[in-house]
Amino acid sequence: MIERGNRYRTLGLLGGMGPGATADVLTKIISATPAARDQDHVPVLVHCVPQIPDRTDALLGRGPSPEAALIDGTLALRRAGADFMAIACNTAHHWYEAVRHAADRPVIHIADAVVSEIRASNKPGAVGLLATAGTIKSGFYQRALRAEGFAPCVPDPAIQNAVVDKAIASAKAGRWPEARRLIRRAIEILGDEGSHTLILACTELPLAVRDRDCEGMFIVDANMALARACVAAAHEMGRTLNETAELL
Amino acid sequence: MIERGNRYRTLGLLGGMGPGATADVLTKIISATPAARDQDHVPVLVHCVPQIPDRTDALLGRGPSPEAALIDGTLALRRAGADFMAIACNTAHHWYEAVRHAADRPVIHIADAVVSEIRASNKPGAVGLLATAGTIKSGFYQRALRAEGFAPCVPDPAIQNAVVDKAIASAKAGRWPEARRLIRRAIEILGDEGSHTLILACTELPLAVRDRDCEGMFIVDANMALARACVAAAHEMGRTLNETAELL
Repeated sequence: MIERGNRYRTLGLLGGMGPGATADVLTKIISATPAARDQDHVPVLVHCVPQIPDRTDALLGRGPSPEAALIDGTLALRRAGADFMAIACNTAHHWYEAVRHAADRPVIHIADAVVSEIRASNKPGAVGLLATAGTIKSGFYQRALRAEGFAPCVPDPAIQNAVVDKAIASAKAGRWPEARRLIRRAIEILGDEGSHTLILACTELPLAVRDRDCEGMFIVDANMALARACVAAAHEMGRTLNETAELL
Repeated sequence: MIERGNRYRTLGLLGGMGPGATADVLTKIISATPAARDQDHVPVLVHCVPQIPDRTDALLGRGPSPEAALIDGTLALRRAGADFMAIACNTAHHWYEAVRHAADRPVIHIADAVVSEIRASNKPGAVGLLATAGTIKSGFYQRALRAEGFAPCVPDPAIQNAVVDKAIASAKAGRWPEARRLIRRAIEILGDEGSHTLILACTELPLAVRDRDCEGMFIVDANMALARACVAAAHEMGRTLNETAELL
């Protein structure tokens, strides 16, 4: 039933946080795939169920944990036939271990995907992190960067609150001039503190950042890095599958 | 675990034909939803597995049937928890009855969604259909239109081949000026034949049609109509669910 040839493994994408981020990652997976025809694309199952408690609210002690809902989604993707998984939400990676345990199969970590692109860029200097207050508080990006010898640089709490969080809220509400102005300010601050690389670790941010705001900086769109890592993993696992098939 | 309040039913979206069309429908579902926050959006499970035989090739007797793969996808969406379904591919609706049988739950038909918007528009005259040769040959749009008293108008086979199919191929390959020129020609021909309404029944077409090409015509983007019908159905079924919950 499934065409032979390109045997990809099936990605399960845990999403809905929000649905726009899910569509963004799915679109980036498609654009990151070298494909001459539909059948060359990576098979993806998507769980885009937004009825899940807010991740940042939970991390800041203002709301219930999304863990049980994340596990529900993971189990649904397993039942549907996912071979490996990814989480289409930066902040939700705070619950990565719970998802991986429930998945019982590989789960690509967005921070690993990002740090791997930063390593390949060979750019010296600190790495600035633009993300929600929840992602910053969780600390998984900072840990992934330090584990590879990079110095993370996060805005101080007052700037996070008055500039970054406000920029993300403006972008979510479609107030683009305000979002762009605030983000430009945050980028200047991180640049002044020595960041030569910038992680855009929230879906709304790539839409609000213009190239001219980041002159000389190496910019990593976390969703794009995750998408590329998913495509690479689907190919790599598929290759193993093809070799096994040839041996039979 | 799932937040109470807006209790939507979960949509299962059968996609991958191609993946770009799936991302298009998912994005349109999000934009068609009146939502103040993530949790207001429709829960969607997506089966985007492009390793499925080409639908038009099958319909033109040039390749194997996609029916078994469509049924596989339907069953995967059932296992994952879909309450109702939709197919993110015009041409695949040729196998609608097989999908509906396998789904064993409501499956929104894209032609019903389109014809319902045409009926609401109160626009007289014939209804032009721009679609793949496979969709035209299957005839489900023509039947859905006639069942509601509308006269379908399809390009004659030579025009379909030399203009419409070529426009879709150009759009798929990113040759936009050529795609736009060809589509404008097809629209002129359908207009000359009396069409006052135009169905864009292939994902690539809305991207290649400019408003000024269709002066005075009522244009229906089939993917957008499907997205709106999915959101309406999720709300309607959710309302019934809420009323039942209130009775308990």
